[in-house]
Amino acid sequence: MVTAPLTTLAFDADDTLWQNEAYFKMTQERVEALLAPYCAPDEFHTRLLETERRNLGQYGYGVKGFTLSMIEVAIEASAGRVPATVIAEILAGGQDLLAHPVALLPGVEETIRALSADFRIMLITKGDLLHQEEKLAASGLGPLFDDVHVVSEKDEAIYRRCLGQDAARTMMIGNSMKSDILPALAAGSWACHIPGEHEWELERAEPPQRDARFHRLENMAGLPQLLAQLS
Amino acid sequence: MVTAPLTTLAFDADDTLWQNEAYFKMTQERVEALLAPYCAPDEFHTRLLETERRNLGQYGYGVKGFTLSMIEVAIEASAGRVPATVIAEILAGGQDLLAHPVALLPGVEETIRALSADFRIMLITKGDLLHQEEKLAASGLGPLFDDVHVVSEKDEAIYRRCLGQDAARTMMIGNSMKSDILPALAAGSWACHIPGEHEWELERAEPPQRDARFHRLENMAGLPQLLAQLS
Repeated sequence: MVTAPLTTLAFDADDTLWQNEAYFKMTQERVEALLAPYCAPDEFHTRLLETERRNLGQYGYGVKGFTLSMIEVAIEASAGRVPATVIAEILAGGQDLLAHPVALLPGVEETIRALSADFRIMLITKGDLLHQEEKLAASGLGPLFDDVHVVSEKDEAIYRRCLGQDAARTMMIGNSMKSDILPALAAGSWACHIPGEHEWELERAEPPQRDARFHRLENMAGLPQLLAQLS
Repeated sequence: MVTAPLTTLAFDADDTLWQNEAYFKMTQERVEALLAPYCAPDEFHTRLLETERRNLGQYGYGVKGFTLSMIEVAIEASAGRVPATVIAEILAGGQDLLAHPVALLPGVEETIRALSADFRIMLITKGDLLHQEEKLAASGLGPLFDDVHVVSEKDEAIYRRCLGQDAARTMMIGNSMKSDILPALAAGSWACHIPGEHEWELERAEPPQRDARFHRLENMAGLPQLLAQLS
């Protein structure tokens, strides 16, 4: 077994530390129901995914871009027939999503608190800057992190920039194969995939092939034991 | 005269390095014209300002929140009568704003390039993270900056965090009295106000009283001479 002289743990935020995708999904289902007279839910779902993918380069990740893309699809899919009052409900759905209380995932707080005695603890997350800061503040986890990076995209270059000289001594922990695992491994780090309950289609990717630095856990509570085995 | 052992120059971005407010204003005027059948332009203007102020804590600064607030006001001010096709044009206006080419203000590039030989050069800007990064990349100025901070709000605490030990040896240069000048002075820095052609109402503030660290210039080209006088 390859041993890991790990000094730093870098965590993703949404669906790694706290619930996120489930709330997006609920909001989208609410909008699909509102729009049912104008557009079949399946068609809305497919069009929204295409629209979000197309808008990603301009809007980036997060609730504001999601809301704007839902409004765009509601208008297009209804051929302009959707009433303004329904669009007002989409706006309100986006605002509810921004105001949603933060619900930590099981074992997160205890595990990170315990590990913070022995490791430098980082947060690397993408999304709307203000919203990510607000969720971190609301989570109460803020003081556990030595370093917080809200970035616009999570690719190899970003991990190299955030991790610097420590990349090879860092393990990135997250729910997204595409954004947390593959680019962190490419940047020379270790990575631990903890799948979430729901996964956004745009975050899907195949797991890496035979990489001793790649690990997988069911939930955060298994992390101290994994790290003990690797050291 | 108080002498300034300045080592660092921190620049604001929008309307300090490049045009910004003029494009927001043009977009807003285009939307006001579209909505004229439903709402007088003056009323739209007043309501938008109130709505943006109310949404700032959730949306933060930038084009995406501006677009969402314009849609909200269009629906409310028309009592739900605005057709979806007009809302589609507001969405398109926001996307045009995000895609607008970057136009540097006069003297910016030459001045910063010259000063970068003697000073550490920082960027401290608020707004949508991705859009600010994209504008910096498009401006070609990126390589001149030693350090870039895109922040969610520009207050005293943020300046203390970004400037650290160097606050007293830093001059913050920007167009906004409220976001660039007053909080930077409060954090112990020097500050130089270079007013823009247009000013967003939510950025207005009174200038500081008798502060030897506060200066004002007509445009960026005067900065090297001011710094020479202070050294």
